[in-house]
Amino acid sequence: MCRWLAYSGSPVLLSDLLFAPENSLVVQSLHSRLGVEAVNGDGFGVGWYGAQEEPGIYHSTEPAWSDRNLRELAGHASAGRVFAHIRATTGTPVQQTNCHPFRHGRWLWMHNGAIAGFSSVKRDLTLAVEPALFPLIEGSTDSELFFFLALTYGLEQDPPAAVARAVGLIEETGRKHGVPLPIQMTVATTNGETTWAFRYSSEGRSRSLFHNADVRTLRLQHPDNVTLQHVSDDARIVVSEPLGSLEGAWREVPESSCLVIEGGREQLHPFAPVPGAAPAGSAAAAL
Amino acid sequence: MCRWLAYSGSPVLLSDLLFAPENSLVVQSLHSRLGVEAVNGDGFGVGWYGAQEEPGIYHSTEPAWSDRNLRELAGHASAGRVFAHIRATTGTPVQQTNCHPFRHGRWLWMHNGAIAGFSSVKRDLTLAVEPALFPLIEGSTDSELFFFLALTYGLEQDPPAAVARAVGLIEETGRKHGVPLPIQMTVATTNGETTWAFRYSSEGRSRSLFHNADVRTLRLQHPDNVTLQHVSDDARIVVSEPLGSLEGAWREVPESSCLVIEGGREQLHPFAPVPGAAPAGSAAAAL
Amino acid sequence: MCRWLAYSGSPVLLSDLLFAPENSLVVQSLHSRLGVEAVNGDGFGVGWYGAQEEPGIYHSTEPAWSDRNLRELAGHASAGRVFAHIRATTGTPVQQTNCHPFRHGRWLWMHNGAIAGFSSVKRDLTLAVEPALFPLIEGSTDSELFFFLALTYGLEQDPPAAVARAVGLIEETGRKHGVPLPIQMTVATTNGETTWAFRYSSEGRSRSLFHNADVRTLRLQHPDNVTLQHVSDDARIVVSEPLGSLEGAWREVPESSCLVIEGGREQLHPFAPVPGAAPAGSAAAAL
Amino acid sequence: MCRWLAYSGSPVLLSDLLFAPENSLVVQSLHSRLGVEAVNGDGFGVGWYGAQEEPGIYHSTEPAWSDRNLRELAGHASAGRVFAHIRATTGTPVQQTNCHPFRHGRWLWMHNGAIAGFSSVKRDLTLAVEPALFPLIEGSTDSELFFFLALTYGLEQDPPAAVARAVGLIEETGRKHGVPLPIQMTVATTNGETTWAFRYSSEGRSRSLFHNADVRTLRLQHPDNVTLQHVSDDARIVVSEPLGSLEGAWREVPESSCLVIEGGREQLHPFAPVPGAAPAGSAAAAL
Repeated sequence: MCRWLAYSGSPVLLSDLLFAPENSLVVQSLHSRLGVEAVNGDGFGVGWYGAQEEPGIYHSTEPAWSDRNLRELAGHASAGRVFAHIRATTGTPVQQTNCHPFRHGRWLWMHNGAIAGFSSVKRDLTLAVEPALFPLIEGSTDSELFFFLALTYGLEQDPPAAVARAVGLIEETGRKHGVPLPIQMTVATTNGETTWAFRYSSEGRSRSLFHNADVRTLRLQHPDNVTLQHVSDDARIVVSEPLGSLEGAWREVPESSCLVIEGGREQLHPFAPVPGAAPAGSAAAAL
Repeated sequence: MCRWLAYSGSPVLLSDLLFAPENSLVVQSLHSRLGVEAVNGDGFGVGWYGAQEEPGIYHSTEPAWSDRNLRELAGHASAGRVFAHIRATTGTPVQQTNCHPFRHGRWLWMHNGAIAGFSSVKRDLTLAVEPALFPLIEGSTDSELFFFLALTYGLEQDPPAAVARAVGLIEETGRKHGVPLPIQMTVATTNGETTWAFRYSSEGRSRSLFHNADVRTLRLQHPDNVTLQHVSDDARIVVSEPLGSLEGAWREVPESSCLVIEGGREQLHPFAPVPGAAPAGSAAAAL
Repeated sequence: MCRWLAYSGSPVLLSDLLFAPENSLVVQSLHSRLGVEAVNGDGFGVGWYGAQEEPGIYHSTEPAWSDRNLRELAGHASAGRVFAHIRATTGTPVQQTNCHPFRHGRWLWMHNGAIAGFSSVKRDLTLAVEPALFPLIEGSTDSELFFFLALTYGLEQDPPAAVARAVGLIEETGRKHGVPLPIQMTVATTNGETTWAFRYSSEGRSRSLFHNADVRTLRLQHPDNVTLQHVSDDARIVVSEPLGSLEGAWREVPESSCLVIEGGREQLHPFAPVPGAAPAGSAAAAL
Repeated sequence: MCRWLAYSGSPVLLSDLLFAPENSLVVQSLHSRLGVEAVNGDGFGVGWYGAQEEPGIYHSTEPAWSDRNLRELAGHASAGRVFAHIRATTGTPVQQTNCHPFRHGRWLWMHNGAIAGFSSVKRDLTLAVEPALFPLIEGSTDSELFFFLALTYGLEQDPPAAVARAVGLIEETGRKHGVPLPIQMTVATTNGETTWAFRYSSEGRSRSLFHNADVRTLRLQHPDNVTLQHVSDDARIVVSEPLGSLEGAWREVPESSCLVIEGGREQLHPFAPVPGAAPAGSAAAAL
């Protein structure tokens, strides 16, 4: 299992996001409070949107807490949209190509959770990936394959629909192979402008997910809090567990929902898998 | 492209194989004489048969010339059958799961060369892998996929036939995708008792491959050579390029052939791909 | 802080020591029960005496729990004397040259604890190292410098006396620089035949240290325990925390003592620093 | 031996400096034309001045040619002052703390060459480092120790004088230990505003060093060259070997000289060591 953070708002120094908070992601890498595993030391990744069309990515197999290059990078790069992820592997190797966030063009993707019984369903799911996308898979994780399934189903056109179909296929395939609860997930994806965050699991008891309350309201409630004076009104953080203990600051994302964040506004939609949707033209359509 | 070495004979200290020779594999990692690339600094691997049923494997992403753990391991482990490989990537990431030799049960496999146009044929070849073997693929190289195709075609029962069919499928698939010269290869595989070494390429101009001449004959020719006094009569080394410049010591393995080494005896057979052999029961059979 | 293990007895497969026990050192790397830090993920090291005069050393900066090469090496190497160490850094970089055990000729050394106020005393202590030994220091830790001080004071001739003098100098130097409690330590050192284990701290509340009870007695107490049937009579393990929960199996090494293990016999001696002993001929003698 | 590059001018994307040129530093890491070693695969480092007071540093032990994070960082970070270095070790370990450039406050330092007989002179030179600076030495190279000697002699106040005294001490110390030619060096150092580049060796045959000719003149000479249209007038690159083959573009820095670059202007001064200058207050003063 893993922990992740998705930020959007005015440009911030990465270290203010990743190192400064009381319960920052780097702190969580050594002592997660809410994670299934206390330690998330099997790799780290951060993606940030800078001057280029495509986001930059830094992937490291060292634990986040001892990675000096991460500290340097985070101390010198600023961005208005940042994805960061600490990994606790469920079995696949610790290597850069298995670190989140994964990237495709302008898109980033990260995942906490697992596709259950992965070795038994991996082949069927791999066959369902659009053939033109197939050779772009670089690592061996369930999370990256999930990303490529979502891309196959049209992530770049309609993210909630594409993720719903990908999850539908994963559940269908899992059950066909005798896996009772095929998926456990919180997922974040972005094109650099809008962020979509999903919380769902086959068993209906998903990994924790939070987002911050409205910054203007928080400032009124905590007029003495210095940090809040520096945060922009439209700052939005979605995160596996709260970064601090400020009262009223963190709201749980409900079960089976999709949170959409764009331009400082957020919308919450129900999320449910769409079954029976083998992608047209894929080998899986004929399985 | 890469360089490799396969040893069989009386047990030797790994460092006597990997570090001691004038043009040892570690020397070749920095200055290969006959390789397509002079530098083979994209990872290293060694497999050795010790006290266990399965061979041990050490895979490293550091260049062999500066890897301290390799020097320690090689200075303390002895084995009567050793595979070693230095890598110069043709594009796939430098990570442990992409280092040779690859292992399956008691079997080891290593490859110098490439499957041409790999990104265009990768999906078809992946589909041809026996479904039960599919989830065991760990890395992203053409070489490991080639190994799993050979396993699919019965490597463990009849290595020359299995490799001939795997190469047949690779050539057929490549040509279907417009790749004129689909494969370039020297390959070694072993079950810990017999070693099979293949030299072949679609163009008929394959990467170099050598084996040592009979040790007893060499001793007569070079009565003053100290090293030869210590080598067992049945010692056999197959290698991408000679480890030294002793006259008469190295013989080229001919084009399109398979060298079989067992119990200090070697046999040379012609090698030719067997086309038209989609594995029964695989999805590729229906392509 | 760190955790370590020192084994002597009949040759065992390293994996039986490092991976098999219920609370093995690899388990402790992720979830130490008694350590100051629960996680010891800042590097790993193992030293073993094999066929060579000098022990072999494997040093890794990856957490022990995810290091595949360690698993391979441990599954294929056997030794009758093994030192192993998991590291949680107190500030110095995570790099191979900072991993324990440290080696000098046939000698190994590992340490749990710290020299307090290290940056303020490091120069004086470095000057005290025998000039001929000075260029052999490779890393930047307090633990390696402590080893070289012990070597300077004659570790190879009389280990308890040399360690007592090194600790005396460390305490004296610390106090001169205003450090109230200059050292915290459990240390193990061996020449491949005898093992010396020390437990001491300036404050008299030292890190935990245990050794196993007599194997023959344990067998009588637990006639059904399978593991005990396979362990040789003279097997001795000294370890930062018990490897399992078998009643009566583990005895605490008392405060301020030195345990000497040789040929399956152990002797316990009181340990106290010897102050005022700047090494003759060193620059520190004139400080 | 190594290769390095120092840039100053209008802000450029790091990848335009490190990857784009025909004979870029990353190309040189695999195939240096003028280096003592063709391969510089023992680590990489880049320092750049961004939004913070202190420069950022990225140090990697992977060969530059296969480091994916370097490619990402270089594709997203821009700076008006950049130091970059590829390493071919002369014996000290491949680890991040041995990668150049080294940093102290706002200062960067990198070195190609070696202090000859380093193990015999290391202790005396270490003693000469200002005690307050001593604990800040992190690695084990001659190059970093040279930096700390220069800092001891006042690098931050008067770089040419400080380097002259440091080289004087190195030569004096070397000769005292019977080293006939104690130093070989090209060095670059900067405070983020001015760059000083030194070329010197005890034997008077120093490693190669070049700087680019005036950009305005080059534009007149090569009106069709697209690259030159994009380079700012004040761009200055000092580099171990030319980055391309444009006629007239590269001028050799003469033997025994110091090139000072500030605000697009360069000045060339003769450089000679200043002997007999043990730093006041250091232990070396009493040696």
